[in-house]
Amino acid sequence: KIMDDKAKIQEAIKIQGEVVRKIKAEKASKEQIDKEVAKLLELKAHLGGDDGRPQFVLKTAKGTRDYNPKQMAIREKVFTTIISCFKRHGAGCVSLLLMFLITISKATFNHCLLIIFFFQMTFYQLHTVRVRVKVPFARYLAMNKITNIKRYHIAKVYRRDNPAMTRGRYREFYQCDFDIAGQYDAMIPDAECLKIVHEILSELDIGDFRIKVNDRRILDGMFAVCGVPDDKFRTICSTVDKLDKLPWEDVKKEMVQEKGLSEDVADQIGVYVGMQGGMDLAERLLQDQKMCQSKQACAGLTDIKLLFSYLQLFQATDKVVFDLSLARGLDYYTGIIYEAVLSQTGVAPVATESSNGALTEECVTVGSVAGGGRYDGLVGMFDPKARKVPCVGVSIGIERIFSIMEQKAEASAEKVRTTEVQVMVAAAQKNLLEERLRLITELWNAGIKAELMYKRNPKLLSQLQHCEETGIPLVAILGEQELKNGVVKLRDVATRDEVDVSRAELIAEIKRRTSEA
Amino acid sequence: KIMDDKAKIQEAIKIQGEVVRKIKAEKASKEQIDKEVAKLLELKAHLGGDDGRPQFVLKTAKGTRDYNPKQMAIREKVFTTIISCFKRHGAGCVSLLLMFLITISKATFNHCLLIIFFFQMTFYQLHTVRVRVKVPFARYLAMNKITNIKRYHIAKVYRRDNPAMTRGRYREFYQCDFDIAGQYDAMIPDAECLKIVHEILSELDIGDFRIKVNDRRILDGMFAVCGVPDDKFRTICSTVDKLDKLPWEDVKKEMVQEKGLSEDVADQIGVYVGMQGGMDLAERLLQDQKMCQSKQACAGLTDIKLLFSYLQLFQATDKVVFDLSLARGLDYYTGIIYEAVLSQTGVAPVATESSNGALTEECVTVGSVAGGGRYDGLVGMFDPKARKVPCVGVSIGIERIFSIMEQKAEASAEKVRTTEVQVMVAAAQKNLLEERLRLITELWNAGIKAELMYKRNPKLLSQLQHCEETGIPLVAILGEQELKNGVVKLRDVATRDEVDVSRAELIAEIKRRTSEA
Repeated sequence: KIMDDKAKIQEAIKIQGEVVRKIKAEKASKEQIDKEVAKLLELKAHLGGDDGRPQFVLKTAKGTRDYNPKQMAIREKVFTTIISCFKRHGAGCVSLLLMFLITISKATFNHCLLIIFFFQMTFYQLHTVRVRVKVPFARYLAMNKITNIKRYHIAKVYRRDNPAMTRGRYREFYQCDFDIAGQYDAMIPDAECLKIVHEILSELDIGDFRIKVNDRRILDGMFAVCGVPDDKFRTICSTVDKLDKLPWEDVKKEMVQEKGLSEDVADQIGVYVGMQGGMDLAERLLQDQKMCQSKQACAGLTDIKLLFSYLQLFQATDKVVFDLSLARGLDYYTGIIYEAVLSQTGVAPVATESSNGALTEECVTVGSVAGGGRYDGLVGMFDPKARKVPCVGVSIGIERIFSIMEQKAEASAEKVRTTEVQVMVAAAQKNLLEERLRLITELWNAGIKAELMYKRNPKLLSQLQHCEETGIPLVAILGEQELKNGVVKLRDVATRDEVDVSRAELIAEIKRRTSEA
Repeated sequence: KIMDDKAKIQEAIKIQGEVVRKIKAEKASKEQIDKEVAKLLELKAHLGGDDGRPQFVLKTAKGTRDYNPKQMAIREKVFTTIISCFKRHGAGCVSLLLMFLITISKATFNHCLLIIFFFQMTFYQLHTVRVRVKVPFARYLAMNKITNIKRYHIAKVYRRDNPAMTRGRYREFYQCDFDIAGQYDAMIPDAECLKIVHEILSELDIGDFRIKVNDRRILDGMFAVCGVPDDKFRTICSTVDKLDKLPWEDVKKEMVQEKGLSEDVADQIGVYVGMQGGMDLAERLLQDQKMCQSKQACAGLTDIKLLFSYLQLFQATDKVVFDLSLARGLDYYTGIIYEAVLSQTGVAPVATESSNGALTEECVTVGSVAGGGRYDGLVGMFDPKARKVPCVGVSIGIERIFSIMEQKAEASAEKVRTTEVQVMVAAAQKNLLEERLRLITELWNAGIKAELMYKRNPKLLSQLQHCEETGIPLVAILGEQELKNGVVKLRDVATRDEVDVSRAELIAEIKRRTSEA
């Protein structure tokens, strides 16, 4: 009976094989081919192998991936650089739940806000949502009545999306946030956020960058004085946001033809959004006849001036540009906004539109690697008594940085080490396992990172080869002569120099030699 | 009409309020009360507040929690200790997906294994499953045809369960694994795993501990020579596993009355499972007339002897006990098994049964904080050609360790610092913000962790108080006199000593003073 079943399955496999060949020959869509191939594989799995074992196919889910030790070593370097910077600036770590429950009248907030609230809870149901990175933080502050904190958090988050994995977009990805909450004097924490972005991007050494700054109030004021109707601020704002990918003509066309602005109003906007500069530009605009009609634009410009004066003291103005075309899509920003952009060439641009056509937080423009701003109203939205907690923060586009670092590592001849082993404990002759174990125990107990081969009698050559392959810089070689003399032969893997070091001095010598590395 | 609605809701709230009062008075079950209270809160949320704002209730999902900076500081200390140890032993980091897809004939494996394969993908559907920690690792090796690797991984995992949060059990929790895969000489990697557990538990300083070891082959051999039928090995094994919570009488009763062993067979098992010792016990059992009838028991005992000889060289035998009652529930172990148990009192025991009555991996016995063993067959199960990759590994019960460290921190008078700030840049007079920003920039650029208050003119007292509250050890005080003299007043927060340090020497002096801390 089993043989009978087997024959039936084999027949089915044969037929399905024909189907696959046929639709491949017909150049059917990739989806269709994949579907038929999957059917074939499932049939084959049912059949089992020649040895009677089942056959099966393993795969990871779309939009997800494992990270091998080499990739993790690169990630760790990025994490370490970023976290050290956050700690240098006095931040504590807070680990926040992504999901939370809110009992709320449905009619209360508009649809958009409901989506925000429920986002991380409902990513299984909703097809496309923006990643609102600051929402869990605001929820945490409101729930715990915290009125001031400086914190960072790096964590895996998830998105329901059809990610373009070739462009570095995954369903599981890391998110990296730094925020300062509290009632403080203007622009001091804001300037520190920019200083942090400046430090991190300089240290990571991923090429030249610029940090664009603008202010939500300047944008709104500019729209007002140019004659944009109040109810069109938001939509015009998102059109302006496209200026880093599209020429002004296309943006203007969208404003006039799609959004219904008059040519004249669009042209007035065009003049302003073409402006870039530093503190001088803010000063000039404060004198601008039209701009100074808007109180909020003036407030924003005064703050930009103050910001630049602090950035000068922070030695960070070399990379910061006041850019009136920077809009950032998110509606929770209330004051200053900023975005860091790599100007490096040779890095594949990452598409910036998610499937719903909206810009996503962690990938805002081509080359964008960090962004943030002031959001003074968000915590109050979660507080039953609407108590406000002013906040300013930044999100680092850590997945983009990983991709760039991985590409750099691929391109460079330099090997990425996946372990930090400082010394290999090796034997020159047979029957020295016990002596190797004794020595490595001394090293481990002294805090030295050490390894040995898990063989009773490994060949010296294979022990040395292992060091060259994995980048271990030193070998401590034991032989009968060395044991008799109470020494260890310490070999430098790169230069192949060998010197006898007494057992008493070995630990200090290894530490000395590896301290600079 | 709105007022009408409002009146209706208010009426409903009144009625629901009565319901809640009534069932509280009747001392209904907590669940029932919670349910009715939730209804009441939802009604209130519909009503909205006096100011027209909506009222709402925020809560986190059951079995989940946020971690505040203090908790995260403790966690970070634990992570750092564990990861340094893994790195000292030459492990690389691998980040693995918890979910993966497998196309397989349903009839092929038994139901239990199918649950394992699908676990992390289906935690939303299944009510209770054991956390099979090594499965994603075995899948990764098989998929990538990796035949040797030494790796660690610490990651958040999830369980579908009704966790008893008061006992330190959560839906979201950290899992921490170390594994050595590869064809090596007997017991060398196994001994290193035990050495690692020994190092980590010693360094964490969470009280005295023992590491129990046994071998799956010794257990099976023992059951065979005592006359347990082959098909009862598994079930008797899980009964033996209860010996750390139940007296022998109860365990025997279960064997005889529930599992159908004869009294005589149970008594024979009773003699063996009461045995504890070291290498000497293994030697004695190798001479044991009955035990040495089993070839596999002898192989296991010989390996235990070898293991102890290596552990002696590793200076780790002081905490290791060969214990024939250690059984560990998981069926994928093929050789040595081990488990670390805290002997400390004063720590609340954690219940060991999950809701399906099975022991869960990350919480095996009262006081258990680590466990593992050899699993030579698991990778082969995921390989289409059944190629075997021998593996040995250990999982650290990191959530239990967190709980213990948190309890210790609560009990101790010592403050847990949530940041690592070394120095506060303070002003003694007004109008020194610019000077403070200039100085802190120098410190940050030199890699010093420094903070300032985000106020233009903070009071000196409040700056000093902030240091005392958050444990910042040093204050660099600027005043007009200091600026004139080109010095900074460096204050030790603990002793309140102040000395003038020249600007040129300040960085070196801060580094010198904080290097030991």
